[in-house]
Amino acid sequence: MALFVQKFGGTSVGSLERIEAVADLVVKTTQQGHQVVVVLSAMSGETNRLIEMATQLDARPNSRELDVLMTTGEQVSVALLAMAIIKRGHSAISLLADQVGIRTTNHFGKARIEHIQTARLQQELEHNRIAIITGFQGRDYEGNITTLGRGGTDTTAVELAAVLKADECQIFTDVDGVYTTDPRIESKAKRLSHITCAEMLALASLGAKVLHLRSVEAAGRYKVPLRVLSSFSPDTGTLITYEEELIGHSRIAGIAASRNEVEIKVLGCEQSFSCLGEIKALCAEQQIEIDMIAQTHQHSGKIDYAFTVQSNDHLQVIEILQSNLRYIRAHSVESNANVAKVSAVGVGIKSNCEVSNQFFSALTQEGIKTLLVSSSEIKVSVLVEEKYLELAVRTLHATFFSESTE
Amino acid sequence: MALFVQKFGGTSVGSLERIEAVADLVVKTTQQGHQVVVVLSAMSGETNRLIEMATQLDARPNSRELDVLMTTGEQVSVALLAMAIIKRGHSAISLLADQVGIRTTNHFGKARIEHIQTARLQQELEHNRIAIITGFQGRDYEGNITTLGRGGTDTTAVELAAVLKADECQIFTDVDGVYTTDPRIESKAKRLSHITCAEMLALASLGAKVLHLRSVEAAGRYKVPLRVLSSFSPDTGTLITYEEELIGHSRIAGIAASRNEVEIKVLGCEQSFSCLGEIKALCAEQQIEIDMIAQTHQHSGKIDYAFTVQSNDHLQVIEILQSNLRYIRAHSVESNANVAKVSAVGVGIKSNCEVSNQFFSALTQEGIKTLLVSSSEIKVSVLVEEKYLELAVRTLHATFFSESTE
Repeated sequence: MALFVQKFGGTSVGSLERIEAVADLVVKTTQQGHQVVVVLSAMSGETNRLIEMATQLDARPNSRELDVLMTTGEQVSVALLAMAIIKRGHSAISLLADQVGIRTTNHFGKARIEHIQTARLQQELEHNRIAIITGFQGRDYEGNITTLGRGGTDTTAVELAAVLKADECQIFTDVDGVYTTDPRIESKAKRLSHITCAEMLALASLGAKVLHLRSVEAAGRYKVPLRVLSSFSPDTGTLITYEEELIGHSRIAGIAASRNEVEIKVLGCEQSFSCLGEIKALCAEQQIEIDMIAQTHQHSGKIDYAFTVQSNDHLQVIEILQSNLRYIRAHSVESNANVAKVSAVGVGIKSNCEVSNQFFSALTQEGIKTLLVSSSEIKVSVLVEEKYLELAVRTLHATFFSESTE
Repeated sequence: MALFVQKFGGTSVGSLERIEAVADLVVKTTQQGHQVVVVLSAMSGETNRLIEMATQLDARPNSRELDVLMTTGEQVSVALLAMAIIKRGHSAISLLADQVGIRTTNHFGKARIEHIQTARLQQELEHNRIAIITGFQGRDYEGNITTLGRGGTDTTAVELAAVLKADECQIFTDVDGVYTTDPRIESKAKRLSHITCAEMLALASLGAKVLHLRSVEAAGRYKVPLRVLSSFSPDTGTLITYEEELIGHSRIAGIAASRNEVEIKVLGCEQSFSCLGEIKALCAEQQIEIDMIAQTHQHSGKIDYAFTVQSNDHLQVIEILQSNLRYIRAHSVESNANVAKVSAVGVGIKSNCEVSNQFFSALTQEGIKTLLVSSSEIKVSVLVEEKYLELAVRTLHATFFSESTE
């Protein structure tokens, strides 16, 4: 007998028919002799319906009350799934965040889980009940309702799996696992049966949308065995592992791509002054991360800096830098949003020069100019013109995942 | 400065426009220097939407989970109203049953409030916040979500007003007060500025739909000053009073009518046997109330009994009596659903013979035959053929509320 935490996202519970299918799936797991704790999102569409009502009343609705509103979505899901499972003759009970005892910080809309009580859940499991928990939500120390922000239901599932020491946390979604790259860009993309947590973290932060970064971080923190699989055609999916032996032999796990980047150039900086340090400090004040930094020396002795920021920080960064041009002793600021970041991710990538050589020569052969470059222990990233995104992904995929290199 | 508990029903918060109107109304009350605790129902239509989903999954959905589902309705209302009030620059906070501390029995779907904590509410009032509470719901001693059944939001409001010692509990609804009779039957019906709690109880139990019986009972228990008024055109409405002086001078407060009655006849009972006692016992076992009992002696020495039950008990009563005919030593059972109960309600009605005489002679003059009769300290009721309902109401209204008798 194993204990599984099974998480189903909005699409997986998006209609009464889908809820019936999830009920069948959960019941099947218990019939195989396992214990199940289910974590649910709101039915797809519901979150938007609620937000729309709120923003009609106030374009920027009060964040505490927005959380009170939003959490009704998961409450509806858990009650309906409990009914569907009970109708099938099995014992099930829905539990809200406060009933489980999921305590979070008090940052409405983006709270973090601080503590989960296990007494009530253990009790339900001992009574052979399928416990169905509202994902995405918690209560702060004053009992206010909070939500965890994007990817919050995954985070709830992972943290529950951690405190319950579950054998596996199964994230049921609308894709059947983690692929070598986005199958919509490269139809030859293959599903990975395993991926290390470090690789998954890198892929998630570099544009892969299967799992939300925070839930992978949480999984890594507690070494929760995490499996991504499809609720529409469940099979083995992809397992996120913590096996150290994988670190030994370097490989490429996948190719990620993101349009969510903007290249910023700060031109004509004085060499004698720490211009880059000031830029970093100004951005850090506004919690804006800068990445892929490069510097070029002009003949005049001045320095040009280039770096990237996330698209949603674009306008704010330009505003900050423009209004501080004199302070940072720079001549001008430029930006280019028509760029994309393409990355290869894999354990041991940095210690293997051949991978890096293959990466750059493949792009060069296709005439794809790299604007900026960055790398870490497990990834190599390049910034390219946005129009080259698909070509770069397909070229790199062919390089590292051709039939012969399998 | 007074403290008001203001309750708004489903129609009053049935759209975003209506929620904006309620926000204006509540804010206006605070601008007059008063403290306000608001109690809300689900937006009209929402309850049906939720029930429909549940019954599609299971024709008889699990009662605990149904309560989890239903309570999302009020949660949406309170969050939206809080946003609308905050948008208007006033301080407001939504509180769910568990945040207030509304403890109930564990009878899902028809729980009763056992205890309400006041600490959190008092704290919000001290901070000059408008507290917006989910009506209709509570938590049992195990923390399970419960609902109070029909009229539950009124009950929440009344009980909150009682524990907070509010100056008035204002029930905002879609009618502007309590009328001398149903204005849809008699357009000359007049609104009462005052009504005693005993009269209101009688009217509610005899078919008037303005207030639910349980909320009036709760008001009476705690002597909560209760006012019924319209959220669409709020004015003074009708105040439910506990003033003893009203008891002194007898009057008719109103004429109530109900189609929700069935006449049951048990024929040919043996005189030597306590047939009626057995009928009462059999019905009481199933929590079925019988009313308006009459007995007739046949020439043969046998006895016929007639009485009424509520329409929704009709089939069950027939089944019980048919299957126990031999046991209760009766010959046969008949029923007639084409009947209606018409009542006059008023303090001191029994001690004033003239009222009773007027009542019956008015009906006789119009050729309306009374099938059964019952009376108490504050009401006289007759059962008539259903087709006479409107005529009986209009006749009695003219008798007791003609211009001259005003």
